[in-house]
Amino acid sequence: MNVAILLAAGKGERMSENVPKQFLEIEGRMLFEYPLSTFLKSEAIDGVVIVTRREWFEVVEKRVFHEKVLGIVEGGDTRSQSVRSALEFLEKFSPSYVLVHDSARPFLRKKHVSEVLRRARETGAATLALKNSDALVRVENDRIEYIPRKGVYRILTPQAFSYEILKKAHENGGEWADDTEPVQKLGVKIALVEGDPLCFKVTFKEDLELARIIAREWERIP
Amino acid sequence: MNVAILLAAGKGERMSENVPKQFLEIEGRMLFEYPLSTFLKSEAIDGVVIVTRREWFEVVEKRVFHEKVLGIVEGGDTRSQSVRSALEFLEKFSPSYVLVHDSARPFLRKKHVSEVLRRARETGAATLALKNSDALVRVENDRIEYIPRKGVYRILTPQAFSYEILKKAHENGGEWADDTEPVQKLGVKIALVEGDPLCFKVTFKEDLELARIIAREWERIP
Repeated sequence: MNVAILLAAGKGERMSENVPKQFLEIEGRMLFEYPLSTFLKSEAIDGVVIVTRREWFEVVEKRVFHEKVLGIVEGGDTRSQSVRSALEFLEKFSPSYVLVHDSARPFLRKKHVSEVLRRARETGAATLALKNSDALVRVENDRIEYIPRKGVYRILTPQAFSYEILKKAHENGGEWADDTEPVQKLGVKIALVEGDPLCFKVTFKEDLELARIIAREWERIP
Repeated sequence: MNVAILLAAGKGERMSENVPKQFLEIEGRMLFEYPLSTFLKSEAIDGVVIVTRREWFEVVEKRVFHEKVLGIVEGGDTRSQSVRSALEFLEKFSPSYVLVHDSARPFLRKKHVSEVLRRARETGAATLALKNSDALVRVENDRIEYIPRKGVYRILTPQAFSYEILKKAHENGGEWADDTEPVQKLGVKIALVEGDPLCFKVTFKEDLELARIIAREWERIP
């Protein structure tokens, strides 16, 4: 059994909107519904768990009536805590693989779901990633420092793991920006699956313009 | 006088297409024509120089008949050599500010052109930039190393400079991925202007899907 964990517990504090970004409505659908519908349509996914904050349960429940949805789980204050809540909830289902996805990356395609799962079955862990193609800098005290670009990738989601491996990676707590970091600490090799810029994360207000453009074309994208 | 330098001399070797990416046709226009038309419509830009390879002169000439186009200049083998060719050509026009833009970033908007120029007038140098919102890693010998994300920006184009400053930054040669790096070495402060993910660079084949989606909506984007 392969289960998708859809993380929708963020507060969206960098957004300067009243509503967390995953609940912003774009072209008639809340952002989290875009990746959710990909999971519901994907043959590679047998079940979905949605992690969100208590005050959003009602909103989510109204929109996710589907036999594939195993449950809505209360998230923690951090991304890693939310992942752990989902893993705990999934204990009784004994899934073989789990796929973790940030709901703020709305434009998830089926091909990436199945490819990340396929690679995770080979190595135990895989993530969507994007070769960096920009100059990268770090701004410190008004000066910019150039970061060497050789071999740099942006880590995206979805990420897929053997359920047992991900559980082990989280068993002593800890906080990470993604799940490959604690998994690699266990000595597991992380497979990188090439994504594309459609997989971007909606983080800032400026990101909504592109999100709207894609949403208008979404039904035409394979 | 403010002059835009449109860099279109890349070979597009990472694209696995026969045609350099800036000359790929999307929705009836070659990629380089998208930012070119922004420059032609922008009140902040008085002239445009296009830098390309000799074998593409004819293609470009056919498409750029406009009084604002000051010339088509032969580019060098590297980005920095191409910038220097344009600066040399511009000598006789004595521009006060130049704005450098990669033609592989097709979706350039007027608001970014004028804002980058405005900030360059204050400090001497400005670039469009994007706050990083992904986990960043460096892949080395099959292991991934996590790069601290604090203060990290992706550097985009356009970039604007006082003509004299940019000329000085290039007077001893050198190769850089962008022009802010040699300019900062002169002690000039670089202003960062917040861009958005529409400003992405078409580098790999996978980037074309998003480019096509945006191109279809391009006339509706302010």
